[in-house]
Amino acid sequence: MAPSGKTDPDRLSQVFFAPQSVGLIGASDTPTRPPGRPQAFMKRDGFAGRVYPINPRRETVQGDRAYPSLGDLPEVPEHVYILLNTEPAMVAARECFAAGVPTITLLADGFAESGHEGGALQAQLIAEAKAAGTRVLGPNCMGVANLNTGFTCTTNATFHDHYERGGRVGLISQSGGMMGSVMSRATALGVRFSKVAAVGNEADLGVGEIGEMLAHDADTDVILLFLETLREPERMAAFASAAHDAGKPVITLKLGRSSVGQALAVAHTGALLSDDAIADAFFRDVGIMRAGMVEGLVEAATLCAGRRPTAGHARKVGVLTTTGGGGASVCDQLALAGVDLVIPSDATLAEIRKTGIDVKKGPLTDLTLAGSAAHFVQPAIEAMASDPDCDVVLFAVGSSSRANPPEATAPFLAADTNGKPLGVYTVPDAPEALRLLVAAGLPAFRTPESCADAMRAFSRWRAPRVRSLARVAAHDAVGRTLDEHASLAMLSAAGVPTVESVELTLSEVDGVKLPFAYPVVAKVLSDQVPHKTDAGGVVVGIGDATALADAAKSIKANVERAHPEVVVDRILVEPMIEGLQEVLLGYRNDPQVGPVVTIAPGGIMVGLYDDKAVRLAPIDETTAHEMIAEVAGLAPIRGARNLPKGDIASLAQALVGLSMLANADNALVLEAEANPVIVGRDRVMAVDALVRVSD
Amino acid sequence: MAPSGKTDPDRLSQVFFAPQSVGLIGASDTPTRPPGRPQAFMKRDGFAGRVYPINPRRETVQGDRAYPSLGDLPEVPEHVYILLNTEPAMVAARECFAAGVPTITLLADGFAESGHEGGALQAQLIAEAKAAGTRVLGPNCMGVANLNTGFTCTTNATFHDHYERGGRVGLISQSGGMMGSVMSRATALGVRFSKVAAVGNEADLGVGEIGEMLAHDADTDVILLFLETLREPERMAAFASAAHDAGKPVITLKLGRSSVGQALAVAHTGALLSDDAIADAFFRDVGIMRAGMVEGLVEAATLCAGRRPTAGHARKVGVLTTTGGGGASVCDQLALAGVDLVIPSDATLAEIRKTGIDVKKGPLTDLTLAGSAAHFVQPAIEAMASDPDCDVVLFAVGSSSRANPPEATAPFLAADTNGKPLGVYTVPDAPEALRLLVAAGLPAFRTPESCADAMRAFSRWRAPRVRSLARVAAHDAVGRTLDEHASLAMLSAAGVPTVESVELTLSEVDGVKLPFAYPVVAKVLSDQVPHKTDAGGVVVGIGDATALADAAKSIKANVERAHPEVVVDRILVEPMIEGLQEVLLGYRNDPQVGPVVTIAPGGIMVGLYDDKAVRLAPIDETTAHEMIAEVAGLAPIRGARNLPKGDIASLAQALVGLSMLANADNALVLEAEANPVIVGRDRVMAVDALVRVSD
Repeated sequence: MAPSGKTDPDRLSQVFFAPQSVGLIGASDTPTRPPGRPQAFMKRDGFAGRVYPINPRRETVQGDRAYPSLGDLPEVPEHVYILLNTEPAMVAARECFAAGVPTITLLADGFAESGHEGGALQAQLIAEAKAAGTRVLGPNCMGVANLNTGFTCTTNATFHDHYERGGRVGLISQSGGMMGSVMSRATALGVRFSKVAAVGNEADLGVGEIGEMLAHDADTDVILLFLETLREPERMAAFASAAHDAGKPVITLKLGRSSVGQALAVAHTGALLSDDAIADAFFRDVGIMRAGMVEGLVEAATLCAGRRPTAGHARKVGVLTTTGGGGASVCDQLALAGVDLVIPSDATLAEIRKTGIDVKKGPLTDLTLAGSAAHFVQPAIEAMASDPDCDVVLFAVGSSSRANPPEATAPFLAADTNGKPLGVYTVPDAPEALRLLVAAGLPAFRTPESCADAMRAFSRWRAPRVRSLARVAAHDAVGRTLDEHASLAMLSAAGVPTVESVELTLSEVDGVKLPFAYPVVAKVLSDQVPHKTDAGGVVVGIGDATALADAAKSIKANVERAHPEVVVDRILVEPMIEGLQEVLLGYRNDPQVGPVVTIAPGGIMVGLYDDKAVRLAPIDETTAHEMIAEVAGLAPIRGARNLPKGDIASLAQALVGLSMLANADNALVLEAEANPVIVGRDRVMAVDALVRVSD
Repeated sequence: MAPSGKTDPDRLSQVFFAPQSVGLIGASDTPTRPPGRPQAFMKRDGFAGRVYPINPRRETVQGDRAYPSLGDLPEVPEHVYILLNTEPAMVAARECFAAGVPTITLLADGFAESGHEGGALQAQLIAEAKAAGTRVLGPNCMGVANLNTGFTCTTNATFHDHYERGGRVGLISQSGGMMGSVMSRATALGVRFSKVAAVGNEADLGVGEIGEMLAHDADTDVILLFLETLREPERMAAFASAAHDAGKPVITLKLGRSSVGQALAVAHTGALLSDDAIADAFFRDVGIMRAGMVEGLVEAATLCAGRRPTAGHARKVGVLTTTGGGGASVCDQLALAGVDLVIPSDATLAEIRKTGIDVKKGPLTDLTLAGSAAHFVQPAIEAMASDPDCDVVLFAVGSSSRANPPEATAPFLAADTNGKPLGVYTVPDAPEALRLLVAAGLPAFRTPESCADAMRAFSRWRAPRVRSLARVAAHDAVGRTLDEHASLAMLSAAGVPTVESVELTLSEVDGVKLPFAYPVVAKVLSDQVPHKTDAGGVVVGIGDATALADAAKSIKANVERAHPEVVVDRILVEPMIEGLQEVLLGYRNDPQVGPVVTIAPGGIMVGLYDDKAVRLAPIDETTAHEMIAEVAGLAPIRGARNLPKGDIASLAQALVGLSMLANADNALVLEAEANPVIVGRDRVMAVDALVRVSD
């Protein structure tokens, strides 16, 4: 046995996914009850290893000899599934630790997901496991299955279905129920699995470490994840990196795209709440594709298997059809999902027209019903695949896919697309055609929405930009907020151009000589007034020294009325800065994934729209420009609608500078926000800032 | 025969959907070829009427006696389907007109969808039909089917499937291919149809008129529409109104939510391009629900059948589950779709806890696997249905729906929800359970996305606000643009508060005495400079008379450099207006649906986001307030994040005033836009405007 936490990875993968011997503590004689299922499933599926039901109250379980205890077995099993409730499960786990069982899985709930007391019990369990050198899956876990060997060591009711062997898709799920959703829908499409694992509470073995096993698994080509939260992002980044190196795409479906979904994920898993945009940035930066729906996830598996991410540009899709309405439906969804469509070149169209079908130039090449025979379809596909602009071919096929699946799918199977993926969306419900296509290795799509979902993930897929995460702040760090003057100074030091400003005590205001010209802005200076404008603490357009003195009095009176506990003794005076647009630049040491950097429209636009670019920090200038380009609300300073262009180069440099707070010597910064940053034609300037540092 | 265009509606509906005798001109002996299909389908489906294949080259067609021509039939058929190509189809149509056939359908393409020449041919066809008193379906049309009588008079390949009788859902489709998509997917769910029609080019009989037949049809409870464009909105409004009065929900799926989809719809149908938000406003205002995906459309049919729109509030959904991940998935999608979820009251939770299952308070009531037996599920549903906040109950059911459909669905069938809809989403792929539920009249949902799509449509459903459309401007009206001074004057007359302004010739500027104080804004005044700011034609913050004179010179120089063809001789001077936010108010006499009114964020935010409220004009104040409330980007002036509230009452009045341009005496106005309208704490003021009037 390897020492605690350092099990040899190959050995771990073997005992986890392919053990020779399995103990089932608490096995039930009823094969349909959860504690009876693993034994029944393994028997049905022809598992060749040794299975030991352990149940002190019975001579036999499901017709097999039962053992009273672990100690009565003829050997120490490589993998034990403990099927008992919380308290007896703890007793059984300790027996496994004492016996030197290398891996155990626990079905019982009542651990961290149930609250503080359960959390303490779970911590105790894992501490003892580590000391003993036993690795733990769960608790609160439906188990693991190797579908190619019949090691179906799971209580998941989805395995009442018998899944066919020969699959090459791996699946890891934080939800047992959603594992059934993914697997049953994959099965309807003919997508088969190699190895699957539910992770339950992920107290020890988690998505990242199991993912690494699959990244190195010879039977697995592509890895799917169903996630409710991110529990071990560092390990997930390492797994994504390993999968990339092994040429295995990873695609995730993660709950919590809405705030309601986020809150439910928190309630359901006991995990921390993070902004979904941060999860999105994490996946993108470590090279994991993200789907938005179960069928999109499953369909993406076939689309992505054996493929590599693009270096730079988003993949473009060339769409063909024989049925205009169906083709337009899928184009509409692709466009809504932000997927770029190919407008075929004149040469491509000329090639297609050689078949005798006169097609129009546009984002949908409609061969019409007249062009639905194979001798039109196949050359049209091959012509589209030869278009230099086309990265993926998609064909929307009509009623023939339902009426005559073998004939309708033949041209897709025969087409030579020069290595480019050829996907097929069936306009009617055509399950048989979908299965024929998938069986031949072609991506097949059941609905326009799932097609767009999978294509979107694939088209945006990038290689890992980040291979290991920067350190993560303590989860409970509240920190200390700096006042605006100190905040601006810190941002300035980080390389964000900031407005010149003068800090004045109220007694200094009368007759003060400013180092810049009027008109100016005066603001209350305090770390206790978060909403300065609302409190009457900001006066703009101050034209001269007298007006400045009046403004100072007004600010003191207003703020002290709004916040009776605050004594206003200082103001900050800045020149009025004009520009083209207000922008927000943000930095945050996120409790889940560590430092991230953000850009979004600023000023009163903050928070109005879900429109921002987020990346793991630090970033380089190329990434900064990419971020600026992807925020819809920054179109004005990018020069849209003939508007004057802003100083994008300086804005990118400021963003890079802010992201460098992620470097070790700035570990104190929990959060830094410059808003608004005024972007002008030839400069950018932060005029307000808020920095929170660790105490 | 009734005179042209005035066929008695009952008689029309009878000859259209339930004729006693049918002629098939160009019937083919091959039952699988399109011209052979109607005869084969009607025979298979047991149509009791008389069917006459007409084919001069054959003695028999598909074993039935064939007739050489229409004139050889023993009677004039009530309905003739012309299955010939364009030119012979015209000949056959003329024979039908001469014989007094009441309704014909044309399969041939080559009419308006093919371009100008085909358009002229179509106009000729319809003119002759009207003169003869014959009603026309198509051309370019796959036909019509009455599924309860076997009158399957269609060439649509989807009818190679035999659809069961007994359905009560009507369907009208502008795309033959998408009719197959909708019907096949409905069939998979067990949803059956009463009467369906493809409309092809809608040259005569269109969605509106056929919809009216279904609104009055005793066999139809709910009406689905697949649309690519809006061809006869006045008639559709009348149909929607009739359907509402008859208690029949109407739900549409319309292509063109993306700009790519819009362009394709235009290319595919030859129809006009309209902004999708205008189509959305149209559907909402006439009381038609809008789905976004095929399965959402089909699932909404069962959800809405027999229901009425709400008077005011959006319906709230109370979600229960036994499988946390699956329940959270559907909640996530519902929230993303903007559907409000019920947080059950303490009394509701207490009632559920009486079963012995301890549930947490939140937007998802998770009974957990422990609560999956019927004696937990049924009372939990009934408790949720009793919650005063709950309008719809939704249950996310787990693996049992796949493993044991009758047992899993039993508590849903037994539950008494006090008349509130009870929907079920099956987390795994569970087609049998879905069919059991639908057969029992319960709405059942295959995916979280389709569930959210249907629920969104249902929750926002309103009674018709508009029962007949205002007149529509000529399609080709380009009109004449007024200069800013005249535009502001027209808006002011309409009731939109506008900034005070002075029009000056350049020779008047020196030494002018303004009726308002400095600082002021000066702008070039011309109807030939659309982008004044970009042309250097606007100077803001002018502090005194000297600066004004300088500004006038600078404007002249800049604009004449940017637009060498323009001579600048006038400027407009306005006071500087400060406020909280810039808003756009717009009015347009849309070529498709007539007058509409819009509100959106203004200034540089225009067009950045798909965020506006649109309604058919005119509107009342209640509707204006509803519009202001639904624009996300107007949150600042609504007082979000403690920001100072704007003068919403005056803004609403201005919007009502603008919408009154729809009244007959303002028929000249094609378009009127006030942008920006500055919204302050206690006033609103349009400071720029553009009005286009009919010549």
